[in-house]
Amino acid sequence: MDAADPSIFERDLGRTPANFRPLTPLDFIARSAAVYPDKTAVVHGAKRYSYRDFHARCRRLASALKARGVGEGSTVAVMAANSPALLEAHFGVPMAGAVLNAINVRLDAKTVAFILDHGEADVLIADTEFAPVAKEALALSSGKPFVVDVDDPLATKGGGPGGERLGAVEYEDFLAGGDPAFDWHLPADEWRAIALNYTSGTTGNPKGVVYHHRGAYLNALGNAMTLGLDRTSVYLWTLPMFHCNGWTYPWAVTAVAGTHVCLRKVDPAPIFKLIKEESVTHMCGAPIVLNLLLHAPDDVKMKFGRTVTVATGGAAPPSAVIAGLEAMGFSIVHLYGLTESFGPSTVCAWHDEWSSLDLKDRAAKNARQGVVYPTLGDLKIADAATGVPVPADGQSLGELMLRGHTIMKGYLKNPAATEAAFRDGWFHTGDLGVMHPDGYVEIKDRSKDVIISGGENISSLEVEEVLYRHPAVMEAAVVARPDDKWGETPCAFVALKPNSNATEADIIAFCRANLARFKVPRTVVFGPLPKTSTGKIQKFVLRDKAKAL
Amino acid sequence: MDAADPSIFERDLGRTPANFRPLTPLDFIARSAAVYPDKTAVVHGAKRYSYRDFHARCRRLASALKARGVGEGSTVAVMAANSPALLEAHFGVPMAGAVLNAINVRLDAKTVAFILDHGEADVLIADTEFAPVAKEALALSSGKPFVVDVDDPLATKGGGPGGERLGAVEYEDFLAGGDPAFDWHLPADEWRAIALNYTSGTTGNPKGVVYHHRGAYLNALGNAMTLGLDRTSVYLWTLPMFHCNGWTYPWAVTAVAGTHVCLRKVDPAPIFKLIKEESVTHMCGAPIVLNLLLHAPDDVKMKFGRTVTVATGGAAPPSAVIAGLEAMGFSIVHLYGLTESFGPSTVCAWHDEWSSLDLKDRAAKNARQGVVYPTLGDLKIADAATGVPVPADGQSLGELMLRGHTIMKGYLKNPAATEAAFRDGWFHTGDLGVMHPDGYVEIKDRSKDVIISGGENISSLEVEEVLYRHPAVMEAAVVARPDDKWGETPCAFVALKPNSNATEADIIAFCRANLARFKVPRTVVFGPLPKTSTGKIQKFVLRDKAKAL
Repeated sequence: MDAADPSIFERDLGRTPANFRPLTPLDFIARSAAVYPDKTAVVHGAKRYSYRDFHARCRRLASALKARGVGEGSTVAVMAANSPALLEAHFGVPMAGAVLNAINVRLDAKTVAFILDHGEADVLIADTEFAPVAKEALALSSGKPFVVDVDDPLATKGGGPGGERLGAVEYEDFLAGGDPAFDWHLPADEWRAIALNYTSGTTGNPKGVVYHHRGAYLNALGNAMTLGLDRTSVYLWTLPMFHCNGWTYPWAVTAVAGTHVCLRKVDPAPIFKLIKEESVTHMCGAPIVLNLLLHAPDDVKMKFGRTVTVATGGAAPPSAVIAGLEAMGFSIVHLYGLTESFGPSTVCAWHDEWSSLDLKDRAAKNARQGVVYPTLGDLKIADAATGVPVPADGQSLGELMLRGHTIMKGYLKNPAATEAAFRDGWFHTGDLGVMHPDGYVEIKDRSKDVIISGGENISSLEVEEVLYRHPAVMEAAVVARPDDKWGETPCAFVALKPNSNATEADIIAFCRANLARFKVPRTVVFGPLPKTSTGKIQKFVLRDKAKAL
Repeated sequence: MDAADPSIFERDLGRTPANFRPLTPLDFIARSAAVYPDKTAVVHGAKRYSYRDFHARCRRLASALKARGVGEGSTVAVMAANSPALLEAHFGVPMAGAVLNAINVRLDAKTVAFILDHGEADVLIADTEFAPVAKEALALSSGKPFVVDVDDPLATKGGGPGGERLGAVEYEDFLAGGDPAFDWHLPADEWRAIALNYTSGTTGNPKGVVYHHRGAYLNALGNAMTLGLDRTSVYLWTLPMFHCNGWTYPWAVTAVAGTHVCLRKVDPAPIFKLIKEESVTHMCGAPIVLNLLLHAPDDVKMKFGRTVTVATGGAAPPSAVIAGLEAMGFSIVHLYGLTESFGPSTVCAWHDEWSSLDLKDRAAKNARQGVVYPTLGDLKIADAATGVPVPADGQSLGELMLRGHTIMKGYLKNPAATEAAFRDGWFHTGDLGVMHPDGYVEIKDRSKDVIISGGENISSLEVEEVLYRHPAVMEAAVVARPDDKWGETPCAFVALKPNSNATEADIIAFCRANLARFKVPRTVVFGPLPKTSTGKIQKFVLRDKAKAL
């Protein structure tokens, strides 16, 4: 087609307000509130908000923010548990044209201060439970955001409920001053920013990942398709909303007019209680949530007499965990993703024939990260240097690279990092994996977690998978220990289950029976594992320990 | 935000190949073939194509078309029944960069010739069953498209199977010459045209409606969400694929890796047989399809022991039809849309509390066109002149207007018609309706079908709804008859059920008992109703008849 002479199909057939509209998840709440105004949108303890209420509260928030000067390009930071305030911010903040920065509440004050400054927060909405850290962060911060306190009656620790207030106005009063019929507008462009999420890097300053409206809309639809969400879905908030905007589920559940069940703290007792009482159908969580359910005391493990779908990601769930949860009535959907990819970007899509495999083989199939999410676009496992895909042999290691609709705009005020992440037209995940002959991806390791021993690559994940199968092992992490002869050898750090016993010799013997010899840890260290605020094991701490052994 | 000084969220954060990809339904087939290569994609009689086969056949088609010079901006016309050739064209044609023009096979040769010429068809893929019309159309046409004959062994009438071949190559031979690994490319832009569909206007030349890749992708996802499609779905092709590209279901069913069950001809016996044998879960069709199922002979009405979802649209299904089909095990989803809106643009979204209504009230709820489709964006019922929405009182008549993601690019080579249709930033449907207090739209009439009697607007649909409830009435249509005193009066044309009897006085008495006096037909004419090739009752013929009475 010649540019000067477009085909008949491109002539006088451009975009107009009638046939082009920016993609935005804001449309979801408007539609659900219009179609199902009386349906329960949000459950928070004894409180229930209908979709009419939910929409009105989000509009009040947007209107109140606007009255404080918040608008296009403003940043609204939120430090809150999985409560209505944070859920409402997913709609109310972009309704005001602003960008939501949901901050990990487990971070230290110095990091929160860095985020407030780097993200240029104009407003901070802070749950009084986190007032001590928020107060210190505000003191350290060079910006002076307007502070709204959330005094949630369901807060149970730290500063709240009734904890110290840092600002001039409480959230409910702030809403009360807003207009429930506020006439919000669509973003001027679907590429406009909707959210800012800081990666929880294990070292150095976190990077600010910027999301666009288009990706938020599409990943939400991808979630609905992948988990089969519809208006009968009841979604329990076991996943923090400050993790990649709750993997875009605030928008996905709202898109189908499902019910959000808030949960301030991930404890087994309230989880089982809510599953039963609120007829929960879906939930998400890191593997630590699965462990918690599995190892819950017997008296809180209520039977719920139906299947609850649990989507997990962040690390391959060990086979034993998958098997144990299936026996309890949970159906595990294995996802994989990163902050940079709006959360989920692959899913281990199920095949009917897997259902007839024995438990171990079935779990092994499902431990793989799987195939491209329906709304992402494309992925490959490729040589990091050349970009050439590795053979789909389940053996050849390469870097997982993604591209498509649901990849971040880039890193805030960091064009060098953005360019590096997007070099050669792909987002480089930094995760190493293999492509199986059936087209399913399996992550073997983070680039930096590979142990190279005698010229052989050892996947620390593979060794950990074996360790998790040992009956006495609760948690395990494997890192490289420098070795004069082999370069590196695997060093295992192990936390045992309560009232369990195992010696270094026991663990090594178990690994010998289940691993190639060169992969067996030479050293085993017992004790609790150091973790980041998001529950990730801090391998860099363990690496230092291993070096000092 | 100042354009010269963009906010921090718009600086150095533009679209790149890593984070931006054109939306296109072509991604669906690539993903489903990669994830579920062995799953049955297409059933056609005894033939079964896996997703691997399906993808390979589409790629062969694209490659063979390319070898014939087809490319960006080319038009590939298809005259075929609901068979693999037409389904494959939905992917193979755009894979070659070209635009699919699926032609209504019920049209006369002169109209087909007009479409071939107006659409500038480079290729015509024609089922030999329609060779007689295609041959005549080609003779009348001034273009000379390259012709591929489809000699489908399942063709049962007209020229095929083994009917006259008009071209040099048969479809399977054409595919055999193509490359099953053809490396197709995404469209350069998601706004590029993917399909051309001619409206079946009741008078004058049809207009060519141009679809974009973006809308095809999004409407397909909207269909999947609305009907709850997933990989277990089995979709029976009772809806012609030449109607708005089968309401975008060729793409929707493929998106979820469901199974397409082809059906060349809408007959009750094979429909019930396929529902049972292929475990059909979903189908779509105009009201005429519903009637056919309902009035099928008892010996073909197989029981299938589960619920089959049938989406219908094009006209509100009479309550009696909804009730009858529900009793047979069908669940009716009521959609509304037009060629210009990629098919479905509203859905009568169900409310749980409706399920406990009695059959009549339930059916009345579901006879409404409902709410905006999840992937459209926006609608209103408004004064046609001012654009001001009418009150949501279920009484005030206005024009239904749509805008959003799934509205056509416009009319091919007809900027005046495009501009008129899109004036004031909305697509004007030409359909008149009311907005109920619950936000549900109910279409009362096509603008031109309103009868104005003594200054009162009478909805011909409302009168028809009453006529359909009369036990002897099979089909009914009501039009305006000129009247010296009242301006116009309603005139009913009625076809009675076989072996049924009713007089004009009976019908009028029945209407009096069920309608406001001024709405009761003054005249009743008995006999079969004239229909267009797509099964629409030709009201303009009846209007002429009514004038001549």
